[in-house]
Amino acid sequence: RINADRLWDSLMEMAKIGPGVAGGNNRQTLTDEDGEGRALFQSWCEAAGCSMGLDQMGNMFARREGADPDALPVYVGSHLDTQPTGGKYDGVLGVLAGLEVIRTLNDLDVQTKHPIVVTNFTNEEGTRYAPAMLSSGVFAGIHTQDWAYDRVDAEGKKFGDELSRIGWRGEEEVGARKMHAFFELHIEQGPILEAEGRDIGVVTHGQGLSWTQVTVTGKDAHTGSTPMPMRKNAGLGMARILEKVDEIAWSHAPHAVGAAGHIDVYPNSRNVIPGQVVFTVDFRSPDLAVIEDMEARLRIEAQAIADDMGLEVAFEKVGGFDPVAFDEGCVGAVRSAAERLGYTHMDLISGAGHDACWINRVAPTAMVMCPCVDGLSHNEAEEISREWAMAGTDVLMHAVVETAEI
Amino acid sequence: RINADRLWDSLMEMAKIGPGVAGGNNRQTLTDEDGEGRALFQSWCEAAGCSMGLDQMGNMFARREGADPDALPVYVGSHLDTQPTGGKYDGVLGVLAGLEVIRTLNDLDVQTKHPIVVTNFTNEEGTRYAPAMLSSGVFAGIHTQDWAYDRVDAEGKKFGDELSRIGWRGEEEVGARKMHAFFELHIEQGPILEAEGRDIGVVTHGQGLSWTQVTVTGKDAHTGSTPMPMRKNAGLGMARILEKVDEIAWSHAPHAVGAAGHIDVYPNSRNVIPGQVVFTVDFRSPDLAVIEDMEARLRIEAQAIADDMGLEVAFEKVGGFDPVAFDEGCVGAVRSAAERLGYTHMDLISGAGHDACWINRVAPTAMVMCPCVDGLSHNEAEEISREWAMAGTDVLMHAVVETAEI
Ligand SMILES: NC(=O)NCCC(=O)O
Ligand SMILES: NC(=O)NCCC(=O)O
Repeated sequence: RINADRLWDSLMEMAKIGPGVAGGNNRQTLTDEDGEGRALFQSWCEAAGCSMGLDQMGNMFARREGADPDALPVYVGSHLDTQPTGGKYDGVLGVLAGLEVIRTLNDLDVQTKHPIVVTNFTNEEGTRYAPAMLSSGVFAGIHTQDWAYDRVDAEGKKFGDELSRIGWRGEEEVGARKMHAFFELHIEQGPILEAEGRDIGVVTHGQGLSWTQVTVTGKDAHTGSTPMPMRKNAGLGMARILEKVDEIAWSHAPHAVGAAGHIDVYPNSRNVIPGQVVFTVDFRSPDLAVIEDMEARLRIEAQAIADDMGLEVAFEKVGGFDPVAFDEGCVGAVRSAAERLGYTHMDLISGAGHDACWINRVAPTAMVMCPCVDGLSHNEAEEISREWAMAGTDVLMHAVVETAEI
Repeated sequence: RINADRLWDSLMEMAKIGPGVAGGNNRQTLTDEDGEGRALFQSWCEAAGCSMGLDQMGNMFARREGADPDALPVYVGSHLDTQPTGGKYDGVLGVLAGLEVIRTLNDLDVQTKHPIVVTNFTNEEGTRYAPAMLSSGVFAGIHTQDWAYDRVDAEGKKFGDELSRIGWRGEEEVGARKMHAFFELHIEQGPILEAEGRDIGVVTHGQGLSWTQVTVTGKDAHTGSTPMPMRKNAGLGMARILEKVDEIAWSHAPHAVGAAGHIDVYPNSRNVIPGQVVFTVDFRSPDLAVIEDMEARLRIEAQAIADDMGLEVAFEKVGGFDPVAFDEGCVGAVRSAAERLGYTHMDLISGAGHDACWINRVAPTAMVMCPCVDGLSHNEAEEISREWAMAGTDVLMHAVVETAEI
């Protein structure tokens, strides 16, 4: 069993870096705070006897040697970056649980055959730089590194430049590492485990995602002196499209969700009819055909609204991944670990995207989930209990150790 | 007749300060560019033999002496601040036309009985600091100066502090000046004069305005893992309210207009269901009862939408003025000047708010309007012809001189 107090203390220590305004965190990727969080994590890993690797995307790899020098490592981890108004556990738990696995193995003086590597992937959240899971995506060969370096944030700063600026651009080629397996512990970010009263979610699948950036263009004009029939109100066009997004997602519920989280209005002045609105529609489903249907209907419905209102509309796919089926062997290791340890558990489909979803393309992968209060995440009030964190980390350790062999 | 080339050159010279991105201007109030524009205007006024007064709201008063030391001055002017993506004429024409009146009287060596004072009112646009027409409002006793000083921009900077920072906070008590009359030339910002083929709008009335800031609060949560029925999507609530705003305005068309130009979404992240949206609804009508009806229906409809969706909604009135009837004598002076000069003209109701609307409370006031291309304003592509500018300024001069008496 892992040391729950030590794990919790580390979570609380990390949460001091980049505090939010309401008890959570704002430690967005490639900010100074992200750099501070990385340095703290590195110092802990080194104190636990690990060597640190750093690749050209800033992905961190803390390695505990195994008995067999030729055996591929078992990887475990998640991400340390947060949403702008994020919680203390989303991602962080998965990284620090990996560290806790190593600390516990050190305490017990257990040596595994395969090395164990704890990983922090850069820019999982995707807020500052779309898409989400950018660096695990480059690792898995989904995106090129050059393309990733060219992503810009809202202020026009490039990913590659910001990575250098905070001093965490490494030398190692991205994706050169081969993994024996990858495990990620994450909070559920949804309400199912808590509602069902289970300690552990055995994640068999992940739902797919599609991010479509929609640009509606009208004509900025005076709100007072422009007659109603002459208006080309891009804000009203956006409103009508958002209503359709909701309708489309509901038409597939409970097997789909949809919303727009990001909306920018131009010029955003009280007495100017919006000339342009840019927003991103997030559709998800475990069923690829449903995602494709929603994407297609969005384009048709939005085009019809724009045509009807004399507006222009343009679409750009700015992120997406297909539904994922995790590796049966790794999933089995998670399920039998939960069983063996006596934790209540159930199979789950992940509602969110995770680094594990991309790593699953290049290595046998599975995820462990623990409940979170009210299913709330991407909110500073995100909360979990120490017992949930402990159960998840125990199961993670047992699945990892079984896979890494003693 | 005024010197149209000189007027035009001054307009183009002023437009070099705070250029926009598409041929217009971004010279928002109390920015460094606003300061530069003021300095240029002051240098021109001094070169024309005027003395400059500056009040505690930063309102500028360039005075040309009259023959009678006891006669109250005739005021003429508008504003030099612009929208973030504004045109070169909105406000600026009214100030520089006032200057051109003085330059022409100098050329002709005409002395009026009443002094003539050209005015630049601070923060007419209301984008950086709501409400619009803030400083003419303080001048007219509508707002207190302390309240105005405490207005904050999107970055939390106070009006009073920014006025001091740019060096244009004067000593003179605001509103202490008494006016014999006030005249404002402005571009129409609407399509009527152009469509009717008239040179001059004789503004008899101004429509009233109501700005209601609406705050919709839901719960920020993960866009992927939060089931549809558990969502409290403030963005969707905003969308539904915007549809109602449009419906309410249309129900009174053509005697009303309505839209939201300013919309801020929080936390504005692609994978976070919006927890809060703050937006400002702009309703206008020449009929006070219509404005009151629209305001009341907005609150009822928005509350019903929020209740239905499990959202909270709050309302704050952040700006407004009642419909205005301008002074019959001053309006008559404008009409007879247009008549005398042989310009085609028609009576108009101003669709936009203007400093003249507040000054009308404390002095006999009227406005002259000239057409603008496609009725387009609050857009960098705002355009007028030299002939339109000349006609408007000719009429302004004749109305002013008649009122100031020779
Ligand atoms: N787990 C998580 O919130 N990842 C961010 C990517 C997503 O939006 O699903
Ligand atoms: N003229 C003008 O655009 N003034 C700003 C106030 C308003 O929105 O009407």
